[in-house]
Amino acid sequence: MGSEMENGNSSKKWSFKGNELLMKSSALSVRSALNMLMENLNPDDPRTVIPLGHGDPSAFPSFRTAPEAEKAVSDALSSAKYNGYASTVGILPARKAVAEHLSHDLPYKLSPDDVFITSGCYQAIEAILTVLARPNANILIPKPGFPYYEARAIFSDIEYRYFDLLPEKDWEVDLDEVEAIADENTVAMAIINPGNPCGYVYKFEHLKRIAETARKLGILVISDEVYYHLTFGSNPFVPMGVFGSIAPVITVGSISKRWMVPGWRLGWLVTNDPNNILKQYGVVDSIIGFLNISTDPATFIQGALSQVLEMTKADFFAKVKDLLRDTAELCYSKLKEISCLTCPRKPEGGLFVMARLNLSLLENIEDDVDFCLKLSKEESVIVLPGITLGVKNWLRVTFAVEPSSLVDGLNRMKAFCERHAAKKQKKVVSSEKRP
Amino acid sequence: MGSEMENGNSSKKWSFKGNELLMKSSALSVRSALNMLMENLNPDDPRTVIPLGHGDPSAFPSFRTAPEAEKAVSDALSSAKYNGYASTVGILPARKAVAEHLSHDLPYKLSPDDVFITSGCYQAIEAILTVLARPNANILIPKPGFPYYEARAIFSDIEYRYFDLLPEKDWEVDLDEVEAIADENTVAMAIINPGNPCGYVYKFEHLKRIAETARKLGILVISDEVYYHLTFGSNPFVPMGVFGSIAPVITVGSISKRWMVPGWRLGWLVTNDPNNILKQYGVVDSIIGFLNISTDPATFIQGALSQVLEMTKADFFAKVKDLLRDTAELCYSKLKEISCLTCPRKPEGGLFVMARLNLSLLENIEDDVDFCLKLSKEESVIVLPGITLGVKNWLRVTFAVEPSSLVDGLNRMKAFCERHAAKKQKKVVSSEKRP
Repeated sequence: MGSEMENGNSSKKWSFKGNELLMKSSALSVRSALNMLMENLNPDDPRTVIPLGHGDPSAFPSFRTAPEAEKAVSDALSSAKYNGYASTVGILPARKAVAEHLSHDLPYKLSPDDVFITSGCYQAIEAILTVLARPNANILIPKPGFPYYEARAIFSDIEYRYFDLLPEKDWEVDLDEVEAIADENTVAMAIINPGNPCGYVYKFEHLKRIAETARKLGILVISDEVYYHLTFGSNPFVPMGVFGSIAPVITVGSISKRWMVPGWRLGWLVTNDPNNILKQYGVVDSIIGFLNISTDPATFIQGALSQVLEMTKADFFAKVKDLLRDTAELCYSKLKEISCLTCPRKPEGGLFVMARLNLSLLENIEDDVDFCLKLSKEESVIVLPGITLGVKNWLRVTFAVEPSSLVDGLNRMKAFCERHAAKKQKKVVSSEKRP
Repeated sequence: MGSEMENGNSSKKWSFKGNELLMKSSALSVRSALNMLMENLNPDDPRTVIPLGHGDPSAFPSFRTAPEAEKAVSDALSSAKYNGYASTVGILPARKAVAEHLSHDLPYKLSPDDVFITSGCYQAIEAILTVLARPNANILIPKPGFPYYEARAIFSDIEYRYFDLLPEKDWEVDLDEVEAIADENTVAMAIINPGNPCGYVYKFEHLKRIAETARKLGILVISDEVYYHLTFGSNPFVPMGVFGSIAPVITVGSISKRWMVPGWRLGWLVTNDPNNILKQYGVVDSIIGFLNISTDPATFIQGALSQVLEMTKADFFAKVKDLLRDTAELCYSKLKEISCLTCPRKPEGGLFVMARLNLSLLENIEDDVDFCLKLSKEESVIVLPGITLGVKNWLRVTFAVEPSSLVDGLNRMKAFCERHAAKKQKKVVSSEKRP
C-alpha cells in the first residue's frame, strides 16, 4: 500500500461533496434572510442596530423571563439529578407536566404518552414533517407563514402547496382554496395560531371549520401554537386540540415565546387525538422512531419544566401581555404614519405585524428584499422581507422589542421611506444615501 | 362544503401514515436495545438495577461533574445574556473556545470558523452523515462500533460497509480490508478513538496510516473523539486532526464524556483540514446548511462553554482518570473470573470493555441478546448485546459506574453465568430461574 500511496495519489480527486438538497432547503430560512441583512449593515453607522426582524425579545430588559423559570432551571442544574441522558421521548416528569398544563384548555385530558419533549418547537416541526414523508405526499401550508415548514418539506421531499390567509377577513384560512388544492396525496395542513406573522388569534368557530375540512379531506392538522396565550385583543386563545375528535391534531409548541427564552430550546409535540387515529396509522410509532435517532433538549431544562409551568406567577404573564398590547398599538400607529405601508389589521396576538409595501410610492426600491437590504444598510434597522414568508412586497415587523428601541426603529424606517419617496408623490428630501 | 362533509365522510380513510424509513433506522439504536432490556426487568426483584449497558456515569456520586462546569452554566443562565436564539453555527465565543481548546493538541491552529457547535456529539454525527448523502454513496464504519452511524446512514440513504477492528491486534483498524471494500462511491470512513466499545487508544503511527489510506482512497475521515482524553493506559490521546493535512478530517466530540454531562447536549463538529479541501468540495457550506435547518444546543450552555473548558481544574480530570483506571482494572479482572467470557484486552480508554461470549459453556442461552434479556430479568443487570454494535455473541460492559455497583453487577453476572453453565463443563448450581 505504501508505495502506491506515495507516488502521485496526492493529486487524486476527492470523492465526497456537499449536499445540494441541504443547500436548497436551507436557502429558505428566516435565519438565512436575517443573516443576509445583518451582513449588509453599514459598519460605520454608530447607531445601535434595531432588530425588528425576528421574534426574540429576550435580550431586552422589559422582556426578561420570569425569575421563577430561571430559578427552576438553576435548581435542576445544581441538583445534579439531570446531568445524564434523557429518555428519547422526554423525561416522564416533563411529559406529565406538559400534559397537565395543556389539558387546562381542552375538553379532555392529555396523557403523558401524548407528549413528546423536543429541542424547541423547531425540532417538533422537523419531527412531524419527517414522519409524514412518503413518495408523492404533499402538505398544505399557509401563506404568509413560517418558512421552516417549506425548508423541512423540501428536505423531506414532501411537496408543499400554499393556501392563502385572507388579510381582509382577519387573516382567516381560505378554506375553499384548501379544498381546491388538496388531493389524495395530501397528508396534512398546517396552521399557526396565534398567528406568525399576521398577529391574528383565530376564533373557536373558524378553528372548528378547519378541523371539519381536515376531516373531509382525511388529513391531519399540524397546529403551531408556539405563541400560545400571547394574546392581547378580544379573541381568547383556543387550542386546535379542542377539535382533536373531529380530525387528529398534532400540536407543536414550546416555552420559547411565552417565557421569552427561545435559547433554552425546550418544546413539545403533542398528539391531540382522542380517537387514537394517529397511533392506528403508525404516526405515533414514527414520532418515537424519529426521536430515537435525534438529539434531545438538555435534560436539566427538561427537569425544570414542571416547575417552570407550575410556579410562574400570573403577574409575569399579565405584564408581558400588557407590554405586547402597548408595543403592538405603538407599532401599528407608527406604521400607519408611513405612507408607503399598509397594515390590514392591528395585531391581537403573537409578536408580529404584516405591512404591505406600496412600491409605486417609492423610488429606487425594486422589491421587499431591496427595501430591507437598503433599510439595513442606511438605517441599521432589520425587518424581514415578506418573500421569505411567501408574500412578495410585504414586510414582517416585530413589535416585541424594548419600547424605546421600537420607537427609534420605526422613526428610522419612516425617515428611510420619506427619503426614498417617489418624486411625483411628495417633495423629495433626498433620494441619495445619507452621508 | 358543509353538507358534503356531514354525510358519511366520517368514515373516509385517513391519508397519512408512519414513515417506514424512520422505523428501520431507529430499530438499530443502542437506546432501543437498552429500552428492550429495561422492559424485561423483573419488577419483583427488590435489588437495584445495575446499568452496565450505557456510557453515562453522571448519576453516580463518584462521577459528578466538575463544580467549575456547573458554576459556569449557572452563571451564564443568571446573566440573562443567553436566553435568546444562537447563531445556527454556534455563538462565536463558544466556537472560539473550542478552537483554542482543541488546538492545544494539534500542530496547527484551528480557527473559530472550523468549529460548529452542535447539540451533543449525536447531532454532529447526524450533520456529517446528512451532508455526505448522495445517490449511491457509501461510508466505511468499524465493527464493532457505534450503531448511531448505521442508523443515520440508513436514514440518509447512504450504504454502509463494515471494516473489522482486530481484537488480537489491539483492536486496530484492518486497513487492508478498508482498501478492499472501498470503491469509487466511498466518501468517508469513520473511526472512534478512544474506542467505543473496545477501550483502545490508537497510537500516532496507526492514525497516520489511517490518514494515508484515506488519502489514497480520496475519502475523508470522520473521527469520533467523544471520549477524548479519557485515557488511562500507556498510549496518550492523539487527535486524528494531527493528520488533517494528509486527508481532510471531520472531528466530532463533546463535553458529554470528559465532563460526565451527556445531558447537557453540548458538542461540536470540527473541520481539521489545513488544505481547505472540505470548503472547496462544498462540505463546509452543506454543514452550515444543515445547521440552518436544525435545532441548536441551549444558548446559555454555549455561553458557558469557554468557562467550562478553561476553568475546570486539572484535579478533576486526574480524579476521573484514576477512577476509570481503577474501575477498568476491577472490571477486567472480575470478567476474567467468568469462564464463559473472554476479554481480548484490558481497556485503556473510554468507558467500555468488550467480552466475547462462549455459548458452548452455557446452557439454554441462544445468543448475546438472549443472554442480556435473561440477565436483565434474573439479575437486574443491564449489559449491551454485541449484535447492537455489529458483533454477535459479544457483550459491551461499561466500567464507568460507582465501584460498589460495579462489583455488585459483576458478581450478579458471575452468579448468572454459573447458574446457566453447561452441565458437561462444570457442576451445575441450578439451571432454573431463581425464585
